[in-house]
Amino acid sequence: MEVIASAPGKVILFGEHSVVYGEPAIAGAVDKRAFIKIKNSPNNKTILKSYDLNFEAEINSKSKKYYLKKGKPGIIRYILEVLYQHHDHSPIEIILSSNIPIGSGLGSSAAVTVATLAALYRYHKVKFNRKSLAFDAHKIEETVQGIASPLDTLVCTHGGIIYLSRSKKFQSLRIKFKTPFVIGYSSKHGNTGKMVKDVKFLKENNPKIVNHIISAMGNLTNSGKYAILHNNVSKIGELMNINHGLLDSLGVSTPELSRMVYLARKKGAVGAKITGAGGGGSIIALCPKNIDSVAAEISKYEKILKTKFTNKGIYYQVKY
Amino acid sequence: MEVIASAPGKVILFGEHSVVYGEPAIAGAVDKRAFIKIKNSPNNKTILKSYDLNFEAEINSKSKKYYLKKGKPGIIRYILEVLYQHHDHSPIEIILSSNIPIGSGLGSSAAVTVATLAALYRYHKVKFNRKSLAFDAHKIEETVQGIASPLDTLVCTHGGIIYLSRSKKFQSLRIKFKTPFVIGYSSKHGNTGKMVKDVKFLKENNPKIVNHIISAMGNLTNSGKYAILHNNVSKIGELMNINHGLLDSLGVSTPELSRMVYLARKKGAVGAKITGAGGGGSIIALCPKNIDSVAAEISKYEKILKTKFTNKGIYYQVKY
Repeated sequence: MEVIASAPGKVILFGEHSVVYGEPAIAGAVDKRAFIKIKNSPNNKTILKSYDLNFEAEINSKSKKYYLKKGKPGIIRYILEVLYQHHDHSPIEIILSSNIPIGSGLGSSAAVTVATLAALYRYHKVKFNRKSLAFDAHKIEETVQGIASPLDTLVCTHGGIIYLSRSKKFQSLRIKFKTPFVIGYSSKHGNTGKMVKDVKFLKENNPKIVNHIISAMGNLTNSGKYAILHNNVSKIGELMNINHGLLDSLGVSTPELSRMVYLARKKGAVGAKITGAGGGGSIIALCPKNIDSVAAEISKYEKILKTKFTNKGIYYQVKY
Repeated sequence: MEVIASAPGKVILFGEHSVVYGEPAIAGAVDKRAFIKIKNSPNNKTILKSYDLNFEAEINSKSKKYYLKKGKPGIIRYILEVLYQHHDHSPIEIILSSNIPIGSGLGSSAAVTVATLAALYRYHKVKFNRKSLAFDAHKIEETVQGIASPLDTLVCTHGGIIYLSRSKKFQSLRIKFKTPFVIGYSSKHGNTGKMVKDVKFLKENNPKIVNHIISAMGNLTNSGKYAILHNNVSKIGELMNINHGLLDSLGVSTPELSRMVYLARKKGAVGAKITGAGGGGSIIALCPKNIDSVAAEISKYEKILKTKFTNKGIYYQVKY
């Protein structure tokens, strides 16, 4: 028996950081995906390998220990935690492939976690639905990271664009707009925990300033929801640009992120901003036109992806 | 008879753009100055010349016309307006020298206007005080530009750091801190009128977002006043960094300004921000240490000045 499950990566479009203070956020699934294949082990060992990421490890899911044969994947912790919590520890072979850059705030860990869980559930014929899958995947992320956003696993499970309201309700926004965008990701990874802490410190020291910034971000996210529902691409771009400045004011931009944002706008992106917690990581540039020149310009300095939002969330196939 | 008058340039430290909406602002005089020498004409003509700026013109102050012999100084309009309004049109020679970069938001026109007025008043033995001088100079700027900030001429007249409150009252902040800073000025000049209009448009289209940004800027300026009064250099730097992001969110930054700000921070400035209306123009970087490395780095791309705040406002000398 062989199961393949796949989940998409995500970007945060609006509301990073302000979401920590109860403001709304919007994230969307992108057409870059993680794939997990689980099959019976040909020998008596549990093996995890990835040709894309060039690593191979022998795993003991009961003890959560592993022996690396090659590579050094941080992502292994998520897979190991899924197996530890949900596998009967019988020998299996797990093959990961992914075109979501790792550690760049594009949801690689959430996508891998969701895909591993779905494949394993299906392998064991455990019943699940998208809601329970997103919930269980979030628990895995929390265990591994300490804190984790439920939005990531939710988007990677359901696909589409998801709005998280001030009252913590999730709403799927029907995607009408097919506008592509460029993601530029810095080789310097951001540390989400540190950035969240830094912003908290800035807010505590400057409440009269930062509270207004957080409120501006919240209202901006709601304007963004409206613009998405009306497929108003230029408005989305305008809001992205404002949002970038607000993130900059919170101290989470870097010279590399700032350069990418300005290059993208110069080459014709209608909007460009940091996506995710910043301090490294990625920017997103909305490009109804000029996507190739934006991508070419950014790629002189950093890595890029061209992508689009996708409605396709988790899916799986079973071969007997 | 020969009169020399000198007035300093200025930088806006906090509150550009938000001041348009009734929020407070802080500007300071810097130790770069304009000098105006007025003496009797050796022939029957009124001559304006500058060796620094490499121009020479023959002036008819009664008709406000001039004939350029060399150079093309925009600043001539201010001097001409002063002569038109306050001179008896007798032939004089006017020599301008200045180390304030022109058209970079550093108060070159206000300094030249204030210095010309003071020299002319003294030449004609007209009584004046600083208050009347600043007032009259502001009127000249208004006539030439259409709109003008009274803060510029006030700072160039009085020197020091001046706080403009929400209730439009001016307060001189006693300068204790001697921390030097680097000004980086882009070869691309900003158009203040256009930037003010663009921000107004953004605010009208996004009131729920931009009103919070303006309020954050106002509260930030008041925190800045407190930090200046307590000589808290690192706090001033922190506030400058926040303020820069807020200006960025209003769309007034440019790739060049953004690059200068990030280079300055990278090389050790405690704070760096756009100064003035943006869209070109200048940045200011506060450098209690590392001033030379900050200056060297920025000067790879743009022009720089090293400067400090000065308490020395308008002054003049008379030789008979």
